[in-house]
Amino acid sequence: MAEQEASGTVAEEARIDEDILQVLQDMANRLRVHAIRTLCASGFRSASEIMSVLLFYIMRYKLTDPENPNNDRFILSKRLSFVNVATGWLGQGLGVACGMAYTGRYFDKASYRVFCLIGDGESSEGSVWEAMAFASHYSLDNLVAIFDVNHLCHGGTLPLEHCVDFFQKRCEAFGWSTFVVDGRDVEALCHVFQQAAQVKSKPTAVVAKTFRGHGMPHVEDAENWHERPMPKERVETIIKLIESQIQTKKKLNPKPPVEDSPQINITDIEMTSPPDYNVGDMIATRKACGLALAKLGRANDRVVVLDGDSKNSTFSEIFKKEHPEHFIECSSEQNMVSVALGCATRGRMVTFLCTFAAFLTRAFDQIRMGAISQTSINLIGSHCGVSIGEDSPSQMALEDLAMFRTVPNCTIFYPSDAISTEHAVFLAANTKGMCYIRISRPETAVIYTPDEIFEIGRAKVVRNSVNDRLTVVGAGVTLHEALAAADDLSKQEDISIRVIDLFTVKPLDAATVISNAKATGGQIITVEDHSSEGGIGEAVCAAVSMVPDILVHQLAVPGVPRSEKPNEPLSMFGISARQIIVAVKCILMN
Amino acid sequence: MAEQEASGTVAEEARIDEDILQVLQDMANRLRVHAIRTLCASGFRSASEIMSVLLFYIMRYKLTDPENPNNDRFILSKRLSFVNVATGWLGQGLGVACGMAYTGRYFDKASYRVFCLIGDGESSEGSVWEAMAFASHYSLDNLVAIFDVNHLCHGGTLPLEHCVDFFQKRCEAFGWSTFVVDGRDVEALCHVFQQAAQVKSKPTAVVAKTFRGHGMPHVEDAENWHERPMPKERVETIIKLIESQIQTKKKLNPKPPVEDSPQINITDIEMTSPPDYNVGDMIATRKACGLALAKLGRANDRVVVLDGDSKNSTFSEIFKKEHPEHFIECSSEQNMVSVALGCATRGRMVTFLCTFAAFLTRAFDQIRMGAISQTSINLIGSHCGVSIGEDSPSQMALEDLAMFRTVPNCTIFYPSDAISTEHAVFLAANTKGMCYIRISRPETAVIYTPDEIFEIGRAKVVRNSVNDRLTVVGAGVTLHEALAAADDLSKQEDISIRVIDLFTVKPLDAATVISNAKATGGQIITVEDHSSEGGIGEAVCAAVSMVPDILVHQLAVPGVPRSEKPNEPLSMFGISARQIIVAVKCILMN
Repeated sequence: MAEQEASGTVAEEARIDEDILQVLQDMANRLRVHAIRTLCASGFRSASEIMSVLLFYIMRYKLTDPENPNNDRFILSKRLSFVNVATGWLGQGLGVACGMAYTGRYFDKASYRVFCLIGDGESSEGSVWEAMAFASHYSLDNLVAIFDVNHLCHGGTLPLEHCVDFFQKRCEAFGWSTFVVDGRDVEALCHVFQQAAQVKSKPTAVVAKTFRGHGMPHVEDAENWHERPMPKERVETIIKLIESQIQTKKKLNPKPPVEDSPQINITDIEMTSPPDYNVGDMIATRKACGLALAKLGRANDRVVVLDGDSKNSTFSEIFKKEHPEHFIECSSEQNMVSVALGCATRGRMVTFLCTFAAFLTRAFDQIRMGAISQTSINLIGSHCGVSIGEDSPSQMALEDLAMFRTVPNCTIFYPSDAISTEHAVFLAANTKGMCYIRISRPETAVIYTPDEIFEIGRAKVVRNSVNDRLTVVGAGVTLHEALAAADDLSKQEDISIRVIDLFTVKPLDAATVISNAKATGGQIITVEDHSSEGGIGEAVCAAVSMVPDILVHQLAVPGVPRSEKPNEPLSMFGISARQIIVAVKCILMN
Repeated sequence: MAEQEASGTVAEEARIDEDILQVLQDMANRLRVHAIRTLCASGFRSASEIMSVLLFYIMRYKLTDPENPNNDRFILSKRLSFVNVATGWLGQGLGVACGMAYTGRYFDKASYRVFCLIGDGESSEGSVWEAMAFASHYSLDNLVAIFDVNHLCHGGTLPLEHCVDFFQKRCEAFGWSTFVVDGRDVEALCHVFQQAAQVKSKPTAVVAKTFRGHGMPHVEDAENWHERPMPKERVETIIKLIESQIQTKKKLNPKPPVEDSPQINITDIEMTSPPDYNVGDMIATRKACGLALAKLGRANDRVVVLDGDSKNSTFSEIFKKEHPEHFIECSSEQNMVSVALGCATRGRMVTFLCTFAAFLTRAFDQIRMGAISQTSINLIGSHCGVSIGEDSPSQMALEDLAMFRTVPNCTIFYPSDAISTEHAVFLAANTKGMCYIRISRPETAVIYTPDEIFEIGRAKVVRNSVNDRLTVVGAGVTLHEALAAADDLSKQEDISIRVIDLFTVKPLDAATVISNAKATGGQIITVEDHSSEGGIGEAVCAAVSMVPDILVHQLAVPGVPRSEKPNEPLSMFGISARQIIVAVKCILMN
């Protein structure tokens, strides 16, 4: 039994001074009283001894400088001081901890360690087990996960010992060095964490039993009271009982960190040379994106790219080939986003993540929580829309723009050619907050010259004459359809239309859209490789909704597209040049 | 070793006729040839023996009636015939299989069994381990999961035996009866599946090694070719080699199913009595929803409700109390949605799922895939928006409407009082396709009478006079703010405004919105407890975008709300009666 191992080694190690143990126990009780007083910190109540031992005996950090890069990291499922990322209760903390530990071990090559306390219920989330697999695969021996196991296992239907057994077996099966410990015993906790620091090539799991305690029935009761309000008198009785156990007034100061994290600079990353494409070159934006990432990696040595099974489709393999040490293979989207959030904390890494745009729906909750935590990560979604062709509808992202548009302060790039893609990557690298870059599978023509200047929130008017009778707003593949439609209408019908490339969908350049709409009869057609809900069409509708005399006609992908190996998917789903031409004629005839 | 157990018992059982084994092997090779010819069925290539044994020796079903409720079920990660749900490659299949097995064991109490083949890479998804925990917790001994383990384990960096060991330990740690088997050996497969049928109270995992095979190097090679195209000559050589192994022309017919699934009827479920509320009663829509579910359970005995830790907040505990046998406790959103999809397949159950609306973001991919599979499940999201008050922003759903609006054919109800909530629940129960019901935490007044008739896609004009100068569109808590604003404006300023309750956000009653806007000066204010992107405001903007002379002014929740224990959250975030009044005055002054 790992439990016996843990206590069996106590004799071999230097015993911890009794005074220190008493101070740790007292600190634990002070934390517990604090936790009971501020109901929101309920996660602390059962784990007070664990927190006391970690914060005042094990962890190395500067109390006066919580953001110091050399500090040990601590992650809890609720936002508190020292906690870098808000993770809710949904088991995202361990994935974030993995990203921090990976950064510490492989990029910073520094001494700081990462501790993650996993609270009640969190461990039922599969994302915890994705992180468990990731941490053992990458031998993150600077990572310690503490499972706070109490009677809540399986909704309270299992006895505690059975729960502990479950956790121990599962942690071991996922390749972790695993210790079982009485979570109320400060001495045992000290020893377990000291042992964890000696484990090589494996992360350590500490399965802490926190239900059965020190014979304080009222206190146990209070700890299991959860979110319901407790009568005030009762709270005070319990607090008095706990306070009566406190024997000293001494405090312990945390040990200082080892100062071996490298000095870094991840701001103002500049293109070393202008984009190397010529107008008319045919290249997919996904490929240009892979090339841009590789170039970015040359411009700054703190760039990390995460991808997994899709790297030969997203072309992140171009980055991997050139910067293999800065590429992290991940196998599941949820954990990949959490790891990226961990890499990006404390501004340690310029973090990019690539996958099929459709599969980012898998990580919506992680993305949402990352934005709430004001993180700066950059997500790249490839193979958007029906333009991917013959793949299954499950792989066609038709909802990613809607998803990312709801994310607070998220910048959404939707580049239409290789040059704007390269600019999007460099702008994203230098932008605070979350960025999303939507890229496409098919090859499309380069339309901008290498000296074109791109800014966030600035659309490009790519076709323009005084006789324009209508404005078409496109992005990505549909911009090329709009240009083809403009050519055709001009040649065949002598009808001029204006064409706008949004470049960023959020923030949307409302001023450019409105002024051009007004200059072209107040008529706009939006055309997008996305569902009609929440995408470009509705963003434009909202942008002009308070301006009189502007009408918006939406072309978008309707319903569930079936994958029928179409030769011309854009045409089949109503967003090709042909349908733009029909829409233009329809509008102008009325 | 479980592997040895599996082969050790062969002697004890009746040996399988050599002829049958040869036919099974031949069938396997025919499947393999078919799979190689139709590249899309790549999941079959390594698993041909498994499929042959399952389809022609183990499973009981009517070949001519694939939807027969008595048939054994089979789930694969790619859509094929016999496969009920499109699950992509993201590890959702096992959760769906759990829902089918739960239904078979606890609701149908029938003999049919459920088999799930889990392909390459899928098992790295945490959702697989959520399903593993669910299946063992509920003792689903009618469920067999087959892990097709080959060299792809950890990106090919681990030897096969190591991978098999990983899987075996993990399956055992998650409480499954686990067998290891050579996935090419039809006889061993037959025996393992026969043994699985004898296991009581536990689900069975079959860890099938499919990399090392029968000494056909070219074939092995072909099976590991994956998605890249192979030269045509090479394909033909391989196919000829496989075909040369086929020795018989015999076929096996599957065994017929045991016909013990009950006859059921889940259509046209009617309210047994009108809603029992009076105008002015104060009740939260979440509570009315719990009561409506309990009533629905009385009206039909095939209603199942899924929830977990949130049942005392969503009030699904009211249903649980009255119908404990029809309530499934789930602990993670992703798996909960997959289980619900499983319950709903073949029209066996009227399936409702309740959780905090914010946490449904966790399951966006499962929801998306469910819609692609044209499933009929009903999701209830409670605690939407900032009106939940002092909870963390991580628990405030401000993106759920945007998310569900992108889901093809999804009906979105957003009831504003107890009576419309009860109608929403009964309408959802009778509606094909996915339904989402958005409910709120605060108590609000009943505004409709018990005899009010509700229809999908029909908004209600709840305040109306000939002098109305503007139309306010609300839903849920904001409808009550709009009514309060109307009262105030009428009394204080003698300004009449019209107020519309959308009832369903999708489909949106564009005709009612447009006609009322035209009748009230072409001015609309939308007010929603949601982000301004993708919700009610943009839906209304899009609905009126092609109608001249209608302007839309959006009130919505900006940015990331901080949880600051506000007394009046709606006011703090700009969506209260006070801000509606300001907006009305602003518009009318211009």
